[in-house]
Formats: sequence, structure tokens, C-alpha cells
Amino acid sequence: MNRDLYLGIDTGGTAMKYALTDGRGAALHEGEVPTLPADPIASLQGLRQAVTGLTGGQELPRLAAVGLACAGIVNPETGHLGRSPNLPGWENSPLGDHMKSVFGDLPCALANDVNGALYGEFRHGAGQGCGNLVMIALGTGVGGGIIVEGQLLLGSHRGAGEIGHMVLDTDGPACTCGGQGCLEAYAGSNGILRAARLATSGALATLVAARGDALNTADLAALANEGDAQAKTIFAMAGRRLGQAIGNLVNVLDPDLVIVGGGVARAGELFLGPCREVVPTLVLAAEAKKVPVVPARLGNLAAAMGAAILAQEKEMAG
Amino acid sequence: MNRDLYLGIDTGGTAMKYALTDGRGAALHEGEVPTLPADPIASLQGLRQAVTGLTGGQELPRLAAVGLACAGIVNPETGHLGRSPNLPGWENSPLGDHMKSVFGDLPCALANDVNGALYGEFRHGAGQGCGNLVMIALGTGVGGGIIVEGQLLLGSHRGAGEIGHMVLDTDGPACTCGGQGCLEAYAGSNGILRAARLATSGALATLVAARGDALNTADLAALANEGDAQAKTIFAMAGRRLGQAIGNLVNVLDPDLVIVGGGVARAGELFLGPCREVVPTLVLAAEAKKVPVVPARLGNLAAAMGAAILAQEKEMAG
Repeated sequence: MNRDLYLGIDTGGTAMKYALTDGRGAALHEGEVPTLPADPIASLQGLRQAVTGLTGGQELPRLAAVGLACAGIVNPETGHLGRSPNLPGWENSPLGDHMKSVFGDLPCALANDVNGALYGEFRHGAGQGCGNLVMIALGTGVGGGIIVEGQLLLGSHRGAGEIGHMVLDTDGPACTCGGQGCLEAYAGSNGILRAARLATSGALATLVAARGDALNTADLAALANEGDAQAKTIFAMAGRRLGQAIGNLVNVLDPDLVIVGGGVARAGELFLGPCREVVPTLVLAAEAKKVPVVPARLGNLAAAMGAAILAQEKEMAG
Repeated sequence: MNRDLYLGIDTGGTAMKYALTDGRGAALHEGEVPTLPADPIASLQGLRQAVTGLTGGQELPRLAAVGLACAGIVNPETGHLGRSPNLPGWENSPLGDHMKSVFGDLPCALANDVNGALYGEFRHGAGQGCGNLVMIALGTGVGGGIIVEGQLLLGSHRGAGEIGHMVLDTDGPACTCGGQGCLEAYAGSNGILRAARLATSGALATLVAARGDALNTADLAALANEGDAQAKTIFAMAGRRLGQAIGNLVNVLDPDLVIVGGGVARAGELFLGPCREVVPTLVLAAEAKKVPVVPARLGNLAAAMGAAILAQEKEMAG
């Protein structure tokens, strides 16, 4: 049987999404299984079983390579997973060895989850045809990834891309990292929700009181899209801070394109409009002022797709 | 006669420094000629003449390749010099063609001046043995250069490395670029001198009044080294802002080392001490917190040496 399929896995704190792709980057199957935060090997076995159970068990023998994207500091060469706050039982473990124990001798590629998503967008999404890319993923936390001349920028300790902790104002709001004024404290969902909870009147205060701890950025976006000025201002403030961070990154890296993904980015133009106004006011080089800031295109499956592509490229490189 | 020498040129607004090197990176001769800001070809001819006049005219026939580092946005592939505020007659000109008209068919390498200095430090100075480097050059302006996996990071429009215009506080002091709160506005010599001129009493106010427009950062450093608290505070404030910028860059790029050069950096520990205190408080990854922040080692000749090395590597690559 031909080995012509690639499995890409995106491991988050609660679920492992997967995509089974052909050699041209199309997802033939996709799905998810629970992540067992305390047990990486059992988690991967659960995923292997899900793939085994697809359409009569045809797929597993056709696997040519497997890619795994994982939250945390991933060393693709040694297979080591370092700091990974949402996966306490996975942290500081030999991820490459775990993969081998579950998938045998198949070629295996590893990446940080944002790098996986960025690589997916680079090959099959918003970043196709670009050589230099920046991706910012806005969720509870804010992650980042960078491609330079077609290669993921990993850094000397595999820690590059911590865009969320760029300090934008040393007197700014407290960040989960212990610092102040990080991009994450302004444009991560916690930062946005904290700003919303300061409302003392109007529809926003009513929403905050009604939703309590369940309040999320989709609630706020719905209110803003109804025209509520306070809610719109909250997204605009976060968007302008994102613009400051992107302006700084464009001055340093001069990319073709900046991709904005993650849950918060679903607020769309509420957020990206004010961001795009700020960027050219901060960028120095005339041509770089026009750098497009675009939403991610592959959605939830980006990191799994990217992991599958990294696996395919690793297999092809021999 | 063997072609075994390399000429590296560093073009600034007033002088062109040069270094004639052997294949092992030792400078056999060094010197400078005036830059004619309105006439690049005549400037290069003057430099060629200076080299012709060395020890009996032995050197010119031995030249194997020439490298030119130049302030401004340099495209090493096309040979085009874009924006270059200090070289009005050179700006937007075909620098590669000018080189050819003066040096004939010798292989010719071009680089931005900070990239030239960084490459010199990378091969023969503070950055030897590192794969990922950041350099910040603190003068009147603040420039930057980045090496990723042994390659200069140029960016999509050859505009990467504008570290001086990283916005550190949107309410900060005005910058020459029209923005506010850029690193340059805090840690460039103008920013430091502006802070000094706010003094209304003490030895610092006396120095400011006595030196008038001639005040420079060396004057301030001398006063600080005598123990003057106000002068020390001014360097410490600039150093902490440099630390904020370096923290941000280390989070994004995760380099092996950060090199600080340029005239302001001669203030040494007055400046680098407070900077080094800030960096680890902002860097997220445990190993990256320890990134060394070191002074440049090659001094004034760094960019000329780097240009010579780039020329040699270009010649060797064929």
C-alpha cells in the first residue's frame, strides 16, 4: 500500500485536533480527541485509535509521516518539550520519544502550536507566496510566530516569537507573566474583558453584570456590532495596542504580511480597523508602511494542517 | 600577482573609513578619506586613489573583492541605495553600478552600515561563534541589525533592523521620526542630551550652561564618572529604556547575544549596568533571560571590516 497520507496534530490544553491530509495539503479527515493533560502517551494513543477507526481502518497503513504542534517551547531537533503551562504532565518531557512509542518509526515533525498555525497559513492559507511573515495569535494568551526567508525562526533556545510579552508601556496594566503593559495585557481576551468590567453604566455594564464570569469577547463583539460605543472603544483600544506591537515588529523584521489569528481576532474589523490605522504611523520605511495586516484563513485547523505539512516536508527531505 | 586582499569601506555622512584585509580578517592598512555627500562616484574615486597610494602601489592589483557598507536602506542584490538621510547625493542611486565604474569587475558586496558592523562583530568581534545576534548602534540616531542562523536579516523591502524606532511608550518624548517614545528618543545622544538640559541646578546645570550646543554624551559620562547623581540618573534612565527594547527583542528573536555599539555606548557600565538589570525582568523563557548584553569590540572599524568580510564571502561563493 502506498504511504501517501500525512497526519497533523494540534495539542491544546483540552483537545487534540487532527487533520489527515494528502500530499497536496487537502484535509481528507479531521477530528479531535481529548487531551489528557497528565499523560502524553495515553493522549497520543487515543488519537492513534481515532485514526485507526476511520473508514474501515484504511488510513493508518497509508501514513507517511506525523507532525505534532504543541503549546509550549518545543525543540524540533531534540524532540524536547520545555515550558508548557497548559500541559503540566507534558512539560519537560521527551515528546519525540513519546511520538515514536505510539507511531513507530514514521518520520515525525514537531513544532510549537503557533508556529504550526503559521506554517499552515504560510503553505496553504493567508501567507501563501510570502517569504517573511509574522503571525500573532490572540486568545487568552497572545502567542506569535515568525518566518524569515521561508524558515520558521526558532531562536537560540527555541523561545523566539514571544510577541505577547512585548512591553508597550512600562506603566501599563499587569500581565499574567508578572510584568506590566505587555501586548497580552491589552489584546489578550483577559485584558479586553478586564477593560470591559470597568464599565459602570450603559449596556456594557448591564452585559458585564448579566454574564458574570461567563463573559467572553464574543459577547462584547456582539454588543459592539449593535453599535454600543463603549464596547467599540474597548476593541479599538486593544486594536491600537496591537497596532503598536505590529508597528514595532514591522520596523524590526520588515515582513511581507502580518497575520492575526486566534479567538479574539474573530471580532474582526472592530479590532483590525483601528490596528491598521496605527501601523503606518509607526513604520519608518515607506514600502513597509503598506504591510497588509490580515486575518488568518485556516481557522481552528491551521496548526494541525501546518504540522502535517512540516511532517511531509521532513519526510521528503529524507 | 595573487589576488589575496579585500577592501572594506564604511561610508558615513562625513568620512569613508576603509580597511584592507588579508583572507584571515586582519587589517593590513586602515584609513579614511572625506565623503563627498553630493557625489558618490568622486567619493569612491578618492578612496581608490588613497588605496593606490599605499606602500608603493602594491595593494590595488592584489584586490580580490570590495565591500561597501553605507548608511541607509541598501539592497545587496540589486545594488540600489534607497532612503539615506545623511547622504543626500547618494540617496536613491545605483550604488552597485557606481562601485563597478570605480573598481571594475571585482566582486562587490553591499550592506547597510549597521549590518556591516554587525557582520564584522559576528566574524571577528564580540559575536564570534554565535548563530543568532542582535546589534544596537547608539549614536545621534539608533540603528540596529539582526543575524538569524548566521545570515543577516534584511526583510522583504530590505528595511529590517529599525530597532531605534521601537515605540516604548506612546506618551513618551518626541522622536526625529515624527513619532513619540521611540528607543532613539530615549537612548540616542539627542534624547540623552535633552534629558540633561532639563537640569536646573547642581553640577549638571553648570556643565549644560558651560558647554551649550557643544554638550555631548562624553561630557555627561565624565561628570557621571565623577559621581554626580543627576548625570548618573540620566544614563540609568536611558539604559533602562534600552533594557526594555532589548527585552522585547529577546522575547521576539531569542538571540545568543546582544551587542551594543556606537558612540553613546562608550558611556559603558553607566548605561549597560541599568540596562542589564531590566532585561531578565522582561524576558519570558528561562534560558533567554541570561542572554549576555555586551559592548561591541571592533570599534570604529567594525563596518569596514564587516564589508571586507562580506566581499570575501561573496568572492568565495563565486
